[in-house]
Amino acid sequence: MTDSVEKNVPHQVVVIGGGFGGLYTAKHLAHANVNVTLIDKRNFHLFQPLLYQVATGTLSPGDISSPLRAVFSKSKNTQVLLGEVSDIDPKAQKVMMGNQVIPYDTLIVATGANHSYFGKEHWKDLAPGLKTVEDAIEMRRRIFGAFEAAEKETDPEKRSAWLTFVIVGGGPTGVELAGAIAELAYKTLKEDFRSIDTSETKIILLQGGDRILPHMAPDLSEEARLSLQELGVNIHTNTRVTNLENDIVTFKQGGEVSAIHSKTILWAAGVKGSTMGQILAERTGVDCDHAGRVIVEPDLTIRDYKNIFVIGDLANFSHQAIKPLPGVAPVAKQQGEYVAKLIKRRLRGRTLPQFHYSDVGSLAMIGQNLAVVDLGFLKLTGFLAWVFWLVVHIYFLIEFDTKLLVVFQWAWNYITRNRRSRLITGREAFTEPQTVKNSSPLLDA
Amino acid sequence: MTDSVEKNVPHQVVVIGGGFGGLYTAKHLAHANVNVTLIDKRNFHLFQPLLYQVATGTLSPGDISSPLRAVFSKSKNTQVLLGEVSDIDPKAQKVMMGNQVIPYDTLIVATGANHSYFGKEHWKDLAPGLKTVEDAIEMRRRIFGAFEAAEKETDPEKRSAWLTFVIVGGGPTGVELAGAIAELAYKTLKEDFRSIDTSETKIILLQGGDRILPHMAPDLSEEARLSLQELGVNIHTNTRVTNLENDIVTFKQGGEVSAIHSKTILWAAGVKGSTMGQILAERTGVDCDHAGRVIVEPDLTIRDYKNIFVIGDLANFSHQAIKPLPGVAPVAKQQGEYVAKLIKRRLRGRTLPQFHYSDVGSLAMIGQNLAVVDLGFLKLTGFLAWVFWLVVHIYFLIEFDTKLLVVFQWAWNYITRNRRSRLITGREAFTEPQTVKNSSPLLDA
Repeated sequence: MTDSVEKNVPHQVVVIGGGFGGLYTAKHLAHANVNVTLIDKRNFHLFQPLLYQVATGTLSPGDISSPLRAVFSKSKNTQVLLGEVSDIDPKAQKVMMGNQVIPYDTLIVATGANHSYFGKEHWKDLAPGLKTVEDAIEMRRRIFGAFEAAEKETDPEKRSAWLTFVIVGGGPTGVELAGAIAELAYKTLKEDFRSIDTSETKIILLQGGDRILPHMAPDLSEEARLSLQELGVNIHTNTRVTNLENDIVTFKQGGEVSAIHSKTILWAAGVKGSTMGQILAERTGVDCDHAGRVIVEPDLTIRDYKNIFVIGDLANFSHQAIKPLPGVAPVAKQQGEYVAKLIKRRLRGRTLPQFHYSDVGSLAMIGQNLAVVDLGFLKLTGFLAWVFWLVVHIYFLIEFDTKLLVVFQWAWNYITRNRRSRLITGREAFTEPQTVKNSSPLLDA
Repeated sequence: MTDSVEKNVPHQVVVIGGGFGGLYTAKHLAHANVNVTLIDKRNFHLFQPLLYQVATGTLSPGDISSPLRAVFSKSKNTQVLLGEVSDIDPKAQKVMMGNQVIPYDTLIVATGANHSYFGKEHWKDLAPGLKTVEDAIEMRRRIFGAFEAAEKETDPEKRSAWLTFVIVGGGPTGVELAGAIAELAYKTLKEDFRSIDTSETKIILLQGGDRILPHMAPDLSEEARLSLQELGVNIHTNTRVTNLENDIVTFKQGGEVSAIHSKTILWAAGVKGSTMGQILAERTGVDCDHAGRVIVEPDLTIRDYKNIFVIGDLANFSHQAIKPLPGVAPVAKQQGEYVAKLIKRRLRGRTLPQFHYSDVGSLAMIGQNLAVVDLGFLKLTGFLAWVFWLVVHIYFLIEFDTKLLVVFQWAWNYITRNRRSRLITGREAFTEPQTVKNSSPLLDA
């Protein structure tokens, strides 16, 4: 750092990852006397909290994506680079992207997390998760493809398997997926088929812990459970998936082992830190927790490297409560803002007290006019919670993009139960969504 | 037909294809005493006239798609079947879909057309066309990927090849693509890059004939040419592509052979009838023209089979003018309506005079506030034409779907030059868009 100040070259900040953490870091450095390089594998920031709506046909991927270049179009100190970081040299202060070497004075690693299948990585193809646009399109293909396959199936047992949806994981994503599929089956698609009755659809939510939405207050979990059950979702708590094979989900509830025949299994369970965590650990000696998250210092740097920050889902920040902070957008956002502020302070020879997350509460959408909101001092359920949920998401969305219209569109689709985005695209295998085919290059995109 | 009337079983109508032709046939049979089976490979109708806007990042695929089941949700006599017809038995009056056999009394074949590469089918990967959602996403990936690759490229010659776009074909699609890419490069993306100046982008439109938009009046072609040139598009008429290889487009203009180095070549040229045309020819002995279109009788049936209709882009209808009717949405729509009416008349023992296309004119969008419209009795250019274009498309879109909001969104994006749908998705190869990689199954969708 002193180096670049002496040479009068602006301080070089490299941010890896354009999720909430990276985006807010870069945004809050836009007017500072630094050069920012933002590296991401994709050319857009994804508003992940609404990704389940793409998976269930209410929104299009473009509706919840902001092109990174457009976000930073007017930040002339910021360069967006499309690519994947392959290595880091913390001694030489360099980031490697294939053959390209990018020097930094300060590095922010905000590459997020992936799904964890608890060591059974081959389950990934059987039960896709929901992290990327491609994941969402794949889920959408499977969900709508299942109804199509059921419509054609004459064997009652196979038809029933097509009409059975199993969601593994009772956190916000699992709850939101289960609620959305219930609305699809029991409301939106009700009139659309001729051979099947979509009200025969079974939706089963499997949760490892003793209640769904465990990060919320117990009475809100209970409220969510009642609402989901009223929508038609079967909830199994204290339940662990022990096997996925031949369209059969085997699970253990207490001491009892059961099996469900289902053609559509969706994964909303474990999370593990992205591979950048391992690279950091190898190169810097920093520790990771059991989920591959990097243990960070109170100021979000890593041990021995005051110029490397890890934020967002990849960070394990345990200086505020016994449990690490959860992997949610508001934590990443606040950490990004904190890091930007600390960098600016440091440039003036000053510092900041340790990072402190100010809890904005948590919320989950269950169905139309139905949500649960836990603000700590205030708990909302039902329609009021739904309106609150909507307002919060509008606020978040418009903060870095003029997307009011998108939210109107979403609300409009929601109210009219319009699912115009329920395209089955990509692979041709609409009859057998779980069969991986080699499609032609043009169909590959 | 007499058969089913005697048995008092409703007349069975099978429609193959859910494009404009098939959709309007089925729609206009919704309240008739017939059973309709609509077969399509996809679960949605695609509003193809706006597909180029998906390819250039203004709209999302969902914005221009209507789920077929939703369109026919209230038409209880209509069943939508997802699948691909493999064969037809015109004697037994049956359609085969793999193992499934679907009997018909009347058959409507409306499977449209594909791109023709004039015998050079291997050009398809080098120069993708624009017929499907996947095509549009692939084009979008290549167009936005090219700017990204240029931003990273340090070699000036290669950089220039990334910033050179060649569009083959000067019909409406070619003109609309060229105009949209010009607006992208010279306006929308102008501030977004740091290493390249997008105003150095070259956009080259190659047209075989002596003017672009040859289906319009000569003075409108000229107007379109001037507008495109003003936007920055290079137009070469009387030009034929002779080779595509190693990112080099070789073409012949008059006697002169030239070559352009370009990484992004888009195909908007030849059209050939879909393979259902060949199947029909083999099974019924009907003739096809050189472009694989089925020669139809004045009432849109085929020779020797009064109960088989061919409509839309697959039909060659030459009973009105010397040239066959063009492959555009209004023709398909009117033919679908005609066939539905004729079927209803026949059920009452009556008939109809031959099909007559009432020309609604033609129009093409060139850029923001810029279009050309030819209604025969009225010719419009510039802003007025643009407004007219918009009104026509709104009218078309809302006719079978309540998509007013989508059109507002489109207009909004257009006015604000917002290209939020410019995601590069699917394949990972953002640096080398033309390299086909084997991606993981989850990235494949």
